[in-house]
Amino acid sequence: MTEPFVIVGGDAAGMSAASKAKREAPDRDVIVFEKGEWVSYAACGMPYYIKGEVDDLEDLVAVTPEEFREERDVDLRTGHEVVAIDPEAKTVTVETDGERFEQPYGDLLIATGARAIEPPFDGFDLEGVFTLRSMNEADAIEDYVDDRGPETAAIVGGGYVGVEMAEALTERGIDVSIFEMLPQTLQPFGEETARVVEDHLREQGVDLHLETAVQGFDGDEVVETVALEDSSVAADLVVVGVGVAPNVSLAAEAGIELGPTDAIATDEYGRTNYDDVYAAGDCAEATNVVTGEPDHVPLALTANRAGRAIGSTVTGDPTPTGPTAGTAIVKAFELGAARTGVIDPERAREAGFDPVSVTIEAPTRPHYYPGATELTVTLVADRESERVLGASIVGHEGTKRIDTIATALSSELTVPELQELDLAYAPPFSPVWDPVLTAAKVLNGKLEG
Amino acid sequence: MTEPFVIVGGDAAGMSAASKAKREAPDRDVIVFEKGEWVSYAACGMPYYIKGEVDDLEDLVAVTPEEFREERDVDLRTGHEVVAIDPEAKTVTVETDGERFEQPYGDLLIATGARAIEPPFDGFDLEGVFTLRSMNEADAIEDYVDDRGPETAAIVGGGYVGVEMAEALTERGIDVSIFEMLPQTLQPFGEETARVVEDHLREQGVDLHLETAVQGFDGDEVVETVALEDSSVAADLVVVGVGVAPNVSLAAEAGIELGPTDAIATDEYGRTNYDDVYAAGDCAEATNVVTGEPDHVPLALTANRAGRAIGSTVTGDPTPTGPTAGTAIVKAFELGAARTGVIDPERAREAGFDPVSVTIEAPTRPHYYPGATELTVTLVADRESERVLGASIVGHEGTKRIDTIATALSSELTVPELQELDLAYAPPFSPVWDPVLTAAKVLNGKLEG
Repeated sequence: MTEPFVIVGGDAAGMSAASKAKREAPDRDVIVFEKGEWVSYAACGMPYYIKGEVDDLEDLVAVTPEEFREERDVDLRTGHEVVAIDPEAKTVTVETDGERFEQPYGDLLIATGARAIEPPFDGFDLEGVFTLRSMNEADAIEDYVDDRGPETAAIVGGGYVGVEMAEALTERGIDVSIFEMLPQTLQPFGEETARVVEDHLREQGVDLHLETAVQGFDGDEVVETVALEDSSVAADLVVVGVGVAPNVSLAAEAGIELGPTDAIATDEYGRTNYDDVYAAGDCAEATNVVTGEPDHVPLALTANRAGRAIGSTVTGDPTPTGPTAGTAIVKAFELGAARTGVIDPERAREAGFDPVSVTIEAPTRPHYYPGATELTVTLVADRESERVLGASIVGHEGTKRIDTIATALSSELTVPELQELDLAYAPPFSPVWDPVLTAAKVLNGKLEG
Repeated sequence: MTEPFVIVGGDAAGMSAASKAKREAPDRDVIVFEKGEWVSYAACGMPYYIKGEVDDLEDLVAVTPEEFREERDVDLRTGHEVVAIDPEAKTVTVETDGERFEQPYGDLLIATGARAIEPPFDGFDLEGVFTLRSMNEADAIEDYVDDRGPETAAIVGGGYVGVEMAEALTERGIDVSIFEMLPQTLQPFGEETARVVEDHLREQGVDLHLETAVQGFDGDEVVETVALEDSSVAADLVVVGVGVAPNVSLAAEAGIELGPTDAIATDEYGRTNYDDVYAAGDCAEATNVVTGEPDHVPLALTANRAGRAIGSTVTGDPTPTGPTAGTAIVKAFELGAARTGVIDPERAREAGFDPVSVTIEAPTRPHYYPGATELTVTLVADRESERVLGASIVGHEGTKRIDTIATALSSELTVPELQELDLAYAPPFSPVWDPVLTAAKVLNGKLEG
């Protein structure tokens, strides 16, 4: 008898793997151990719950535990924490209600996710200071806003969480400040896109402090101020969103190798250094489609896709988890900002490229058609090979055009090839030359010139 | 001294070539002969002028004749008709104001466009019966609607013009009927997309007659009825939009070869069977990116792109005109419908493929995020090679996603590769699995199954 497919962690990667494995091999036992109570939830939706656009936190749950158990026949055990892996004996040690037991596995998937980074700020334990990574934290912030009616909020970090929470809390009538250590917000999107977003954040009333290090938080049980280097700013609510770190200690203690990004190293099938141990999602590395090197991209599609592929692989259909382009999109009030590939010139050079880039503005529709807005497109290519390396797009509509460039990256298209694409045109949808093509034309001119 | 670059026809292909040639080689003489008065206009915008969304017909002109002459230094001669080409002597015969003269050329571009097909309907010459191909016709329809206040309109043909004019005339308060000989509207978009559009047209009050042949038009000087096989229908206004035919007689009479589609045959640089004679735009063929065979795709981007490439080629930088995927998008009231590649199974089989397709419905956003609508995605692939052949997308928003598939076609991606793309996700923009990826997953299952 084949031992069960055991999965550690019941979110995107874990539950995708469980569902796919049961679909492909209904007779194979699939056991998921999740230490919390929430499974398969859309963490990306949490800011919109706090904003008030999603009524019920449970709406963010894609598939309920009952559905997994009853409809998909997955042996899902919430409140069960895996505390040790023995990859030689092929067992995991599980703790629940203070009891421990050993569970043998045939294949194991580590899908332990990532946690919010908590810098050693003074006063992190004051009431009113939050990170936003779990459903319980989303619930706590929402309760705090409802119960305490904070008038001012400080957001530490100008990344995805920072930008999305600025929108959510402003919508709740709170005066929002963002504190970012770097000279720009949304670092992975490049400077040009960040500038457009930053102007828009300020227009929306957000008090934006770049190159500003937070020292800690002060207050009497409840947070009252944010301490900066030589001043302090009032804040009735603090959300710290300075990035995430992969949860790898369980794996590392078992001798499972980490990669250069400190996430779990995997091959193209999501396999670790043990043949029957896989890792996927926010705790694992993936191969960057541009550099060919290991990358840590803790995003939802990467996790879902890798989990699903591993579900196929362990049931007899070896399926690559797929490379990552680091494609991402974020809403900032009325703007969308999107990115894919390698944008940062330093990172491009480290990967052996000689990056050349242009930033253009182009309308989303012809001048004569009502409602056109400007898109700002940044396109990066390698000088010698002319290969497209990455792009960023920001504007009021049409930023999903980033998918065109993400697709081009997967095929290693050059700028002249990108410029030749036959993209859709009609006045209600695009100018004749789609903004992506316009950026390619301009970059091509620069490469030739 | 190099003889001038002479261009026959002053619309998208011709003026793109002229502008590019002058930019690359300012000293080269570029002469454009245009028999009419309008140049470089957005024919695709004409329905929106009639609808009332574009105030002034001249708003559709991208660049005025004065700008071409003064700012771009193009010798643009409107009211000049080229009546003969002598490719051995390398001259064209030009007629203007009843006079004729010979113009020598170094390179020649034939950009004579296409004309509306006029079936031999009785009563085509009645007042109130129009085609919609030129700016003068748009002007005439607009005047007729303003002056006569028609209450009923018949549109013959359910293609782009038919669907767009149905929207425009309905918006003007006119009761619209569409008569289409085929069992579906928007033939190039495939049946599944057409059904969604047809349901929507009916919801919007359009009286849709499929598989209905029009015999002609009756009336006393002014059109009053449309004659069908055994009945007639009242119509104060008729617009005939049954397709276009390339204007090739000038070329054919000069011994320039036509291709299998009866448009002018060209190589990858837009060259005809004469080395120094090029053809581009709605009168010329292009290579289909899926079949590799000559195709006639009279669309704006194809024309602009080919013209621009030829402008580079004749000034010393050989540039391919680029293949066509036949990518197109059309607005039908509140819906967008988009297509790319080969969708028709018959056509796929003729090109040597064994087509397999799926049609899926998927939301444009996660279920919990406000405002999600359904997209219907049809995806076609070859059974053996699993190569993506074409797609169609219809819905209330997000139909520009067709560009992702158009890009995949250019790179000959397979369905498993399409399924692996790293597309952008955040709740305001897309579900985790973009509808394109969902279609790829389902089609992949069918190919494996």
